[in-house]
Amino acid sequence: MHYASLSQQVKHFLTASCLLGAAGVAQAQAVADYPIRPVSFTQVKLTDNFWLPRLKTNTDVTIPASFQRCEATNRVKNFEMAAAKSGKFATTYPFDDTDIYKTIEGASYSLSLYPDEHLKEYVDALIKKVAAAQEPDGYLYTARTIDPAHPHSWAGKERWEKERELSHELYNSGHLYEAAVAHYQATGQKNLLNIALKNADLVCSVFGPGRRAVAPGHEIVEMGLVKLYRVTGQAKYLNTAKFFLDQRGQYKGYDFKSTDEWKNGQYWQDDKPVVAQTEAEGHAVRAEYLYSAMADVAALTGDKPLLAAVDTIWKNMVTKKMYVQGGTGAVGGGERFGANYELPNATAYNETCASVADVYWQQRMFQLHGDAKYADIMEKVLYNGLISGVGLDGKSFFYTNAMQIKGGLGTKDTEPARSGWFDCSCCPTNLARLFPSLPGYVYGQHDKDLYVNLFVSSTANLTVNKKPVQLVQQNNYPWDGGLKFVVNPAASTDFNLLVRVPGWARGEAMPSDLYTFATPTKSEVVIKVNGKPTAYTLRNGYAVLPRKWRKGDVVEMTLPMDVRRVVANPNVKDDLGKVALQRGPIMYCAEWTDNKGKASNLVVPPTATFTAAYRPELLNGVTTLTATVPAVQVDAAASTIQTVPQTLTAIPYYAWANRGKGEMTVWFPAQIVDVDLVTRPAELPGTGK
Amino acid sequence: MHYASLSQQVKHFLTASCLLGAAGVAQAQAVADYPIRPVSFTQVKLTDNFWLPRLKTNTDVTIPASFQRCEATNRVKNFEMAAAKSGKFATTYPFDDTDIYKTIEGASYSLSLYPDEHLKEYVDALIKKVAAAQEPDGYLYTARTIDPAHPHSWAGKERWEKERELSHELYNSGHLYEAAVAHYQATGQKNLLNIALKNADLVCSVFGPGRRAVAPGHEIVEMGLVKLYRVTGQAKYLNTAKFFLDQRGQYKGYDFKSTDEWKNGQYWQDDKPVVAQTEAEGHAVRAEYLYSAMADVAALTGDKPLLAAVDTIWKNMVTKKMYVQGGTGAVGGGERFGANYELPNATAYNETCASVADVYWQQRMFQLHGDAKYADIMEKVLYNGLISGVGLDGKSFFYTNAMQIKGGLGTKDTEPARSGWFDCSCCPTNLARLFPSLPGYVYGQHDKDLYVNLFVSSTANLTVNKKPVQLVQQNNYPWDGGLKFVVNPAASTDFNLLVRVPGWARGEAMPSDLYTFATPTKSEVVIKVNGKPTAYTLRNGYAVLPRKWRKGDVVEMTLPMDVRRVVANPNVKDDLGKVALQRGPIMYCAEWTDNKGKASNLVVPPTATFTAAYRPELLNGVTTLTATVPAVQVDAAASTIQTVPQTLTAIPYYAWANRGKGEMTVWFPAQIVDVDLVTRPAELPGTGK
Repeated sequence: MHYASLSQQVKHFLTASCLLGAAGVAQAQAVADYPIRPVSFTQVKLTDNFWLPRLKTNTDVTIPASFQRCEATNRVKNFEMAAAKSGKFATTYPFDDTDIYKTIEGASYSLSLYPDEHLKEYVDALIKKVAAAQEPDGYLYTARTIDPAHPHSWAGKERWEKERELSHELYNSGHLYEAAVAHYQATGQKNLLNIALKNADLVCSVFGPGRRAVAPGHEIVEMGLVKLYRVTGQAKYLNTAKFFLDQRGQYKGYDFKSTDEWKNGQYWQDDKPVVAQTEAEGHAVRAEYLYSAMADVAALTGDKPLLAAVDTIWKNMVTKKMYVQGGTGAVGGGERFGANYELPNATAYNETCASVADVYWQQRMFQLHGDAKYADIMEKVLYNGLISGVGLDGKSFFYTNAMQIKGGLGTKDTEPARSGWFDCSCCPTNLARLFPSLPGYVYGQHDKDLYVNLFVSSTANLTVNKKPVQLVQQNNYPWDGGLKFVVNPAASTDFNLLVRVPGWARGEAMPSDLYTFATPTKSEVVIKVNGKPTAYTLRNGYAVLPRKWRKGDVVEMTLPMDVRRVVANPNVKDDLGKVALQRGPIMYCAEWTDNKGKASNLVVPPTATFTAAYRPELLNGVTTLTATVPAVQVDAAASTIQTVPQTLTAIPYYAWANRGKGEMTVWFPAQIVDVDLVTRPAELPGTGK
Repeated sequence: MHYASLSQQVKHFLTASCLLGAAGVAQAQAVADYPIRPVSFTQVKLTDNFWLPRLKTNTDVTIPASFQRCEATNRVKNFEMAAAKSGKFATTYPFDDTDIYKTIEGASYSLSLYPDEHLKEYVDALIKKVAAAQEPDGYLYTARTIDPAHPHSWAGKERWEKERELSHELYNSGHLYEAAVAHYQATGQKNLLNIALKNADLVCSVFGPGRRAVAPGHEIVEMGLVKLYRVTGQAKYLNTAKFFLDQRGQYKGYDFKSTDEWKNGQYWQDDKPVVAQTEAEGHAVRAEYLYSAMADVAALTGDKPLLAAVDTIWKNMVTKKMYVQGGTGAVGGGERFGANYELPNATAYNETCASVADVYWQQRMFQLHGDAKYADIMEKVLYNGLISGVGLDGKSFFYTNAMQIKGGLGTKDTEPARSGWFDCSCCPTNLARLFPSLPGYVYGQHDKDLYVNLFVSSTANLTVNKKPVQLVQQNNYPWDGGLKFVVNPAASTDFNLLVRVPGWARGEAMPSDLYTFATPTKSEVVIKVNGKPTAYTLRNGYAVLPRKWRKGDVVEMTLPMDVRRVVANPNVKDDLGKVALQRGPIMYCAEWTDNKGKASNLVVPPTATFTAAYRPELLNGVTTLTATVPAVQVDAAASTIQTVPQTLTAIPYYAWANRGKGEMTVWFPAQIVDVDLVTRPAELPGTGK
């Protein structure tokens, strides 16, 4: 969502440069827009104890490491060879080009946060290499350009020929557009944007009514085209995005009777027209990029069936297909959504990229509906299943995010430890671009309503009700429930501050019955204005605070930070009889190293009493949960088993796997009805990806 | 193998009746035969404590119950409607006809053991109904004949059209031939044989070089045709059997790249020519009928490549694809052999029919090679995984034979309890025909060698070295290891008595490294002749006793009846760290009802000491094994687990599931390295088949 609040910039761009197409055409096409506008990341300056160090690590470690790895693994060399039209494609996948685009995108955001002349020069040099690899008509896809007579085996003999199944030509384009818009927005430079537009003009000339038609096999070009439309105002980009959406469900070559999702088109959400789709299905990353684009196009065109479809799909995912730590895409084979309630722990896949895509999608759903439930999900993903994807060192990554590691080892699809890079290295570079875009998800605006979605210490410079307003957040979230908002309008001004009261603080573990709290809330959410408790109405999950705001007005909100037991819907077989632990937005896990070398042996009966304590020395500072619980001990030599009281120490889920390889679990047996005796070591570790 | 020792009868038949074709033709075709001839079941009169009650129950309960169910489920009605050419096929599968043929086959054997005028009349009346359902040209398949314009959906519009995939037309014919030969042999009547020959003449006229060609989708017609050849001497039946074998691997319509065994032909052993097949593959029952026919045709034609192929397949099965209780066909989906060493316990399929087919096959392999290893396998199957298929009541059956029932319930493919009948009721009627044929597997003959394969108390009237010899077995096998053989030649005569020394008695759990004993043999096999210990040479697993035998000579053999721990090849993942219990040929299991309601909680460490005791009151009389072992107890309310000493009582595997539904296990953890905590009840019970 790094195009957040582009409107001002677009206006500036269009009037100041006149380089790009006419806005008039677009207005004829775009009859509407998101009711709620985001507040650009450029307007929000973080001071947050939790997030700022992560963004700094992303800038200092992750982005340089990504560029270094793009060089070391020949991803950059592919562009150089394409420019020279000689050599042999030097990496594994034709979409390896996108790792460069995504790292440039991350670096662009980063440059606006932390100006860095050296990095800027490096990025500009890289953009030159990208420009040189582009063919005269705009085509940009090193896997073919290097040697068009012998393209990569995934690419097909002719351009666009295998776009449905394998080539990822439009996928590469989509990431190029995303990067180009971010780079332009962050730096004001058009060197990458011009490359993107040249490519997009080619794409728009090749695909469309009466021309070539395909449902792109790996979505993202649709989102990228919408961003180009927003930057340029050129209707053709929006039209082509919509055209691609409309192509879904049109291909006649599938075997719809097949249960093989590759053969029936479900893998890439192509088995039905988008307006007829009702479930989150197929490859999760592709799916969530598609759903983001559906929201974009629905918002811009006012297409009600499209809006209804994306609402239905959202409800399906949040009600039946999401892990308790926010992960999506349960099944390793096909990296896909499982069936309803198919959320196994031992083999949970939860690709990091799916969490990145989910943040983009939830932000758009919020902008459509102004409901806190979307920000609730976004918060769950951000604080748990997304940031688990990168180690505290900023340079070790999970492609998958396990729910359970037994015997210290993974399964075929489960990684027990992070890796520096992957053969298919989409996840690290997706995190590199997500992190610095975070400031753009904190606020939203609609007329006189100012929405606060995330509780991140920061100073935002906004225009509300046409007046300049500074909004300062001060908190120690997510560890403390005390939140402070200082409102500093340039002059006293009327507007509504809508502060999200998190679902978990109101007793709802999820905006669905997929997960619920087994423990009652002990305390209420309290809001004070200038020290006085204030009654408030709750609208779509937001505490509405209407007021003529004066400089120095202070809003305080206190969230109950009890330790909560979460139980899953009984349809989730794997979680029956189990509990998970939550405090604030943070989901917990037990890791071997804090628990005498194991985690699968810990029982959390209803009688266990947890204590929360902040430990600054641990894992860069985390609040741990401890309780005395029954632990099962096996004496292999004596063939005896017994339960003994033991201190269970739980850490935030996101922080696991930073201290070596071993057992981890999110769900704990609340009651044991039986045991399975294990006579052999656990499976060999998965290879990871 | 109920055509055992037909040669005399065939000779009699051919000379006495002249009804059937010329033997001369057959001799031109059949250049050889099995080196070892079986001794017909009609020559061996059982007195055995273990088997005779089972054969009696089969006669008194199983066969009448089968006929009753064939009536009640409209299987008989199908024949009546076919005769009337009106109505609508009234059961599920076109091969339901065979349940009648198989029960007639069982009843025929039974009539020779226990003459019964009422049963004879019933069978004759049934044969009249079969005759009436046969079309004038010999075609016999009620699913089409009832209404040829609208045949059963599996049958195809035209005759033989779907024989590869679905129709089972030739499968029905095969069982008809098997039944007809047994009926003729047991009763001397030709009423069913004539129906079979008329049908076989049609089959031989339709299929053959230059005519229609197919590899029958469910084998058995090949075995049946060989039997008709043996009865009639007509070469065309043997030729057609060989023709069907030769058709395998010829069909061009498969997708050999597919891993779907239905699409690549492996399911019905049609992916390669039979001589190129090296592994036991696909649907286990079909496979073992095929391998039986391969042995038949190899024996009769001296076809060396065919012989080599069946030897290779046998070795593959016995080395990598057989459960420790003799079961075959590990995988429920496709009722098929798994990959090498794929022998899971929780989902073991082990169709009862596969064990029946395996007995037929092992008998033929013995006749080919005269090696005791084939009889070792036959014994393992007969005393364990085959008779487990029927309850002690004689009228409740397993379609599948589980290795493990956890929580008292089965899985999708595992039955926790027997059923009276099945929709696809092949197994009950297959047992009905197998049981009374048992006397035919006790002995074999080759020149002056008389082989003793099974230790079954009985009196056999033989001709050895052209002299009448009576051989009396007296024992309390399988509970006691003391075996007595009284040799009563009419006059003193030279011959070699070859008594099988079971592999298990020589320290080999299997004739392969698939299972081995973890405990050393404590005692040796001792053989005495007329009370004096006798040195003997061992030839292919047989103790060779050459002698001029005199009336009243007594051979005694003592087999070591220690309780043995069996361990599996480490490639069998599911059995790692586990032991099974064996005593004599009997494999044991622990069942819930003898072990405080559970079985999955019992550990059998190397230190456990077992005591064997015969208990006449239990399960119609069984030897149980008991030992004090660690048992894991779970207190759900207190969330505690502990191991306590407990008496493990093991019963013969074959006798499980006669006292209600609950846990059962064949393999026990020898050492626990870990536990999986179970928080919810086991799976819902399987539906069974």
